[in-house]
Amino acid sequence: MEILSDNNQKIKELAKLNMSKYRKEMKMFLVEGAHLVNEARLANVLIEAFSIDTKEGYTKISEKAMKKLCHTDTLVSEIGLCKMLDKNELSNKILILDAIQDPGNLGSLMRSAKAFGFNTIVLGKGSCDIYNDKVIRSSQGAIFKLNFITSDLVEFIPTLKDYLVYGTNVRKGISVSDCKKNGKIALVLGNEGNGISDKVDSVIENNIYIPLENVESLNVTVAGSILMYEFRGANNEK
Amino acid sequence: MEILSDNNQKIKELAKLNMSKYRKEMKMFLVEGAHLVNEARLANVLIEAFSIDTKEGYTKISEKAMKKLCHTDTLVSEIGLCKMLDKNELSNKILILDAIQDPGNLGSLMRSAKAFGFNTIVLGKGSCDIYNDKVIRSSQGAIFKLNFITSDLVEFIPTLKDYLVYGTNVRKGISVSDCKKNGKIALVLGNEGNGISDKVDSVIENNIYIPLENVESLNVTVAGSILMYEFRGANNEK
Repeated sequence: MEILSDNNQKIKELAKLNMSKYRKEMKMFLVEGAHLVNEARLANVLIEAFSIDTKEGYTKISEKAMKKLCHTDTLVSEIGLCKMLDKNELSNKILILDAIQDPGNLGSLMRSAKAFGFNTIVLGKGSCDIYNDKVIRSSQGAIFKLNFITSDLVEFIPTLKDYLVYGTNVRKGISVSDCKKNGKIALVLGNEGNGISDKVDSVIENNIYIPLENVESLNVTVAGSILMYEFRGANNEK
Repeated sequence: MEILSDNNQKIKELAKLNMSKYRKEMKMFLVEGAHLVNEARLANVLIEAFSIDTKEGYTKISEKAMKKLCHTDTLVSEIGLCKMLDKNELSNKILILDAIQDPGNLGSLMRSAKAFGFNTIVLGKGSCDIYNDKVIRSSQGAIFKLNFITSDLVEFIPTLKDYLVYGTNVRKGISVSDCKKNGKIALVLGNEGNGISDKVDSVIENNIYIPLENVESLNVTVAGSILMYEFRGANNEK
């Protein structure tokens, strides 16, 4: 067991991971709280765990050092250093996100994606950073179990030749209850305010929508999750 | 058209509405941005609208006064003073929330409730304030079209004699695909971290869950919205 002061070089290096640029460079990120540290351990992405208490399997650090590392107002007692996975194989069901910007939405969508077997998430330009601390918290551990690809969607979508690609442009879609659900599926969700961009829309042939009684719209996380739920029976893989 | 300085007594009174206590006392609340002001006008709850520009139908106020009134970092140019509605009749589908605490969750649930015909929302103890600015923003106007009741759920739920009341206690529920969906429905959702409290659970006979392929859980807004979606065909009213 090692004890690190808050001025230790290692703590300074770890604190840099609060910046997106360094996370990408170092291919590592931090997670906060016992639940996420455990999930990271189970998913084999945990490099090292830190605690303000003396605990087996944890490197002890001072409260001051912990404050330097964590984002939450209430001090967490455990933090984990995790590695980013570099998997590129595509699952049979794919969730494609065109510029989702709210971290809470991205995290909750990860949770739903995992729950309904959309094990690959493809993020286009202008998307929120996957390893943002709020995304990680909202994902509740789903982030460790998914495969992420960052790509230009206008180039990526046409490569999905054996997939049914469904956009969510309500102006030209058919009801999700009427669409084909067997085979490989890719579901494209758009930005919170603007929906799917025109450029991305131009490479998508089929669109689906959720039939609503009223003229209301739904939050993008809710809409995306209901659509993924509708495809829950299709082509599941472990 | 009236022009108000930021020290005007009226502005000071309006600024008090940023506190929950005053909202309840005065039975009024503020909404920010042109979209919500319009929605409030359409729903006949708008008392007065304010703008930093000279516009018909708006009272002009200074930028400094607007800053005193609004919550968003980027200055909005329009704000609306709205009245709280006091409706107590129950709709055929009711959403009951046991201590939902996150404003974004509450607002998004309002949006889904309106979209799927759950036109009454009943809030138990420990729930987030309905007229919190983040709730209003996330609700995207659904807040003006719903009927809210605040009540002790342990007393309220047993009064729903002609409703099918469904809790969401996963340990003892049946799949939502197998439950009865005709008749009047009340759906009870629990707190983000702890679910439905033991006391509320004790007055609920039937529970339902969403069948998931994996052992994952869903965000409460997502879970609640999928369940309301499943009841979309039941007993709709205009």
